[in-house]
Amino acid sequence: MGEALRGLKRTIMCGELRETHVGNKYTVMGWVQRRRNLGGLEFVDLRDRSGVLQVVFGEEIDKEAFEKANTVRSEYCIAVTGTLVKREAANKDLPTGMVELKGESIKILSESETPPIYIKENLDAAENIRLKYRYLDLRRPDMQRIFMIRHRAAKVVRDFLDENGFLEMETPILGKSTPEGARDYLVPSRNFPGKFYALPQSPQLFKQLLMVSGYDRYFQIAKCFRDEDLRANRQPEFTQIDMELSFVEEDDVMELNERLVQKVFKEIAGVDVKLPIERMPYKVAMEKYGSDKPDLRFGMEINDISETVKDIDFKVFQDALANGGSVRAIKVQNCAAMGRKQIDKLVDFVKTYGAKGLVWVAYKEDGIKSSIAKFMSEEQTKAVLDKIQAETGDLVLIVADKNSVVFQSLGALRLHMAKETGILQNNNEYRFVWVTEFPLFSYNEEEQRFQAEHHPFTAPMDDDIQYLESDPGKVRAKAYDIVLNGEELGGGSIRIHDIKLQEKMLKVLGFTEERAWDSFGFLLEAFKFGAPPHGGLAYGLDRMIMFLAGTENIKDVIAFPKNQNAFCPLTEAPNVVDEMQLKELGVNINN
Amino acid sequence: MGEALRGLKRTIMCGELRETHVGNKYTVMGWVQRRRNLGGLEFVDLRDRSGVLQVVFGEEIDKEAFEKANTVRSEYCIAVTGTLVKREAANKDLPTGMVELKGESIKILSESETPPIYIKENLDAAENIRLKYRYLDLRRPDMQRIFMIRHRAAKVVRDFLDENGFLEMETPILGKSTPEGARDYLVPSRNFPGKFYALPQSPQLFKQLLMVSGYDRYFQIAKCFRDEDLRANRQPEFTQIDMELSFVEEDDVMELNERLVQKVFKEIAGVDVKLPIERMPYKVAMEKYGSDKPDLRFGMEINDISETVKDIDFKVFQDALANGGSVRAIKVQNCAAMGRKQIDKLVDFVKTYGAKGLVWVAYKEDGIKSSIAKFMSEEQTKAVLDKIQAETGDLVLIVADKNSVVFQSLGALRLHMAKETGILQNNNEYRFVWVTEFPLFSYNEEEQRFQAEHHPFTAPMDDDIQYLESDPGKVRAKAYDIVLNGEELGGGSIRIHDIKLQEKMLKVLGFTEERAWDSFGFLLEAFKFGAPPHGGLAYGLDRMIMFLAGTENIKDVIAFPKNQNAFCPLTEAPNVVDEMQLKELGVNINN
Repeated sequence: MGEALRGLKRTIMCGELRETHVGNKYTVMGWVQRRRNLGGLEFVDLRDRSGVLQVVFGEEIDKEAFEKANTVRSEYCIAVTGTLVKREAANKDLPTGMVELKGESIKILSESETPPIYIKENLDAAENIRLKYRYLDLRRPDMQRIFMIRHRAAKVVRDFLDENGFLEMETPILGKSTPEGARDYLVPSRNFPGKFYALPQSPQLFKQLLMVSGYDRYFQIAKCFRDEDLRANRQPEFTQIDMELSFVEEDDVMELNERLVQKVFKEIAGVDVKLPIERMPYKVAMEKYGSDKPDLRFGMEINDISETVKDIDFKVFQDALANGGSVRAIKVQNCAAMGRKQIDKLVDFVKTYGAKGLVWVAYKEDGIKSSIAKFMSEEQTKAVLDKIQAETGDLVLIVADKNSVVFQSLGALRLHMAKETGILQNNNEYRFVWVTEFPLFSYNEEEQRFQAEHHPFTAPMDDDIQYLESDPGKVRAKAYDIVLNGEELGGGSIRIHDIKLQEKMLKVLGFTEERAWDSFGFLLEAFKFGAPPHGGLAYGLDRMIMFLAGTENIKDVIAFPKNQNAFCPLTEAPNVVDEMQLKELGVNINN
Repeated sequence: MGEALRGLKRTIMCGELRETHVGNKYTVMGWVQRRRNLGGLEFVDLRDRSGVLQVVFGEEIDKEAFEKANTVRSEYCIAVTGTLVKREAANKDLPTGMVELKGESIKILSESETPPIYIKENLDAAENIRLKYRYLDLRRPDMQRIFMIRHRAAKVVRDFLDENGFLEMETPILGKSTPEGARDYLVPSRNFPGKFYALPQSPQLFKQLLMVSGYDRYFQIAKCFRDEDLRANRQPEFTQIDMELSFVEEDDVMELNERLVQKVFKEIAGVDVKLPIERMPYKVAMEKYGSDKPDLRFGMEINDISETVKDIDFKVFQDALANGGSVRAIKVQNCAAMGRKQIDKLVDFVKTYGAKGLVWVAYKEDGIKSSIAKFMSEEQTKAVLDKIQAETGDLVLIVADKNSVVFQSLGALRLHMAKETGILQNNNEYRFVWVTEFPLFSYNEEEQRFQAEHHPFTAPMDDDIQYLESDPGKVRAKAYDIVLNGEELGGGSIRIHDIKLQEKMLKVLGFTEERAWDSFGFLLEAFKFGAPPHGGLAYGLDRMIMFLAGTENIKDVIAFPKNQNAFCPLTEAPNVVDEMQLKELGVNINN
């Protein structure tokens, strides 16, 4: 058992001490980073949240303290009182490196076994060990830095929204399961056996109701839940910066949020975001980048070469064009010399995105090589190279298929080639773009029905309302995503606030009137009573922190994350529960 | 369908307009509070979150707008553009009462049916109607005021804690079910059929782990969950201001929190809280007020008259004293004339707290009356009245029983008599007190075992550790509650941070070693690696807002509360879910 504080008070944090403090007496408390004996003195690097301070113990400073200091080991938690002195050999790598504390007394508050992971920056330990001993992993200074960023970023967001007239309001975690989203986490009800609450995938309906209630500007840093199979950088529970505004149109939401993003990135990461942020219609994003999350830090845009190749007697091209598809290409600089094996890998790569194949043309110094040389005359090949403005050294990669496949495969290939060629190395750009004019619906081939691209409450663009029933695929939405370096940072839309339009929308989505009212009746009912025009936006806070902290692993920005199986190696949740608990809830486990 | 904004922008909020704005053109948007025709003009009271503004339409101002204004009804959502003028007949009741807007154009953004509840202050409608149409209930100005207070209070708390070095950190909602608390809400796991997550009753274990991780000062405004039968002012999900600090003792936590409370109550309610806040050991609170949440706004303290009555030959007294109990009394001023029927009700009242009866002595002007006159001599009665310093007009109420019953019944009776006599009417005091030195354990008669009075992680007082195994009932805890006007505003403790002490604690609570490690192994394990001394506190945010907003109903401070059955009349959660969803989770409903 360690020693008790018994009135001993910390007077300063380790990392705060500087030359100006020399000569004063301080009490610091923290963890032993390391201890070493040098010239008959004991040197302890003492670490707390603020940094590391060197503490020196010696027989001549205080014999009792010196002897006790002799017993401490790494990660012991101790308190030291002493006088701050200038250090003989300054350590320029440490902010406190000009000073050291002469240890005049020491309390061992808590001993430590040898930790199973190192408490150091850039730890290279297996994830399951890091998660099982998360409290030690979180003790590492680089993790502590991330959570200070997270705290600070949330604070800046809250301050900004407060200054701009937003009220932070809490919405329920115990909600109702609604169709049209991801899979819900369910909570059995004890009072109503056989019925369930659902954890919210977002506060969407509640925030819209708050607009009907006249709260004008709402926000919440809200926990959201999705019971989906976890892809990389997905967690079953995640955090959204969620907002909604009344009496606004797209521009109002985007302008305000640009200022928010500018402020957060400036204050937390020192990044200057130039306003206004570029806007790009969905159609352009797809055609040029094959993605609704275009990474604009590099070119390599997709080119439509359908017109140029339309007379080439190559079945793949002809089929694509005949079926309403297209032939498109990207140009990769300095890759003409790429070997056959590497190119074969690219063919495999695009196949995972549904492409049937990949045509390549290499503009080598010693002539042009092509995978379909026998179908294309030299002139036709030249025309393609001209169309795409290829130069010597370029590799041209071509996909022919229906547009959705062409975009998806070339969009992915573009990112892949950027990685392969390393053109983003040492790129410190933060390239923001608004993607706008999304389609309101996407067609679900499997279920043979239209589904909402964003969600069923997104408003169609005024000019397109006329096609809502006759040609849903043509209708664009009042939706906008804010994209940073090819990742979606946030997204939102202007919402429907008219009961008739909302009913029509649900009908297009295949809802019978009865099911529409069963599922969303309370929202439809609310629209009867003077609902204001409104819209909003939500950011993935975790994703935003990843950008601000410069990490690519979502588990680094969540204090206690789950693993890929939605399991917590630390607490071992989920776990078995008493039979009694289940009995009270009226549920059984299937066997 | 209403008219679209199409670029029209609101330029100011209704409630902001004053005489200084006269002569300018504005666009305001909001809801029609009422419309009336007067002298050929249409007057519309337009309401938004900020207040109400009078808008006047006339044929001579703008004919088209005038005619359209003629069609609007209560709760229509409209936008009006016009010039602000000085009002002829000022309305001193309205902050905007000196001005009015001349309606030069109007858009009807959204029509409204007649709302099922009035949109007005101090609505007297049935709760189920208010909750079903919560979006209308929340539109009422007094509700909007509450949520502005809630937003502002949370902001003040966050700012204060940020300034004092706290990091706001999120802990999981999908956690592990642990014993020793209230009933958990459970969430079936899809990946691990037959296993369950539990929603947290508090972030207790995670915040302690964060201290082990060296975060030093943590806070969170956190959602917590308890699946209990709902008493008044309890909700299945509620919000805590939760904090934890390292390297602290009781005084440090209390001093910091006094300053927090002082700041919040000053900034939000204009209340001056004098520091330091009085401290009262649990034992004193129980003996003087019969409660660990003493309401100090009035006296009527409990007096121990055991010594005075020990020779009175009245079986109830003698039995109580013989069994280690006591005889205690409160003195109620100006109630000596209380009628027999009323007194009988008081007898019934104390019986609900386990008392077998209530003895009374009325010090009337025309003599002393007593319910046990035949057992007490005049001298003995006088002695009791002297002991308790009773004067003419006082009613003395006496309970004799074991101490727990005496305290509980007299404590409740004291509050009851305060209400009956109206001594708290017009009392605007905010009387804070820290209750300290709680017992670490309470004895559960039913289960015949000790249980944690706060929770199993609370540290015993240093001087009492010696009794932990030999006499658990004697051990006091390093715990403290902050009490306001007889209600618990928050509570906390210094925690155990030593594995041996924590294991001993769990043993006293009846845990086998295996069960202790199954339940809390990750915390015990963490204590092996240099856990710092730490402690914390949590406030019920909902309760705090009730005080700040001056409401006695918890449902008034939660935007979308559940009713007494944990049911939401608005969304109808909980509800049935698809058979498919349950199948995926591997659970069945019992029939």
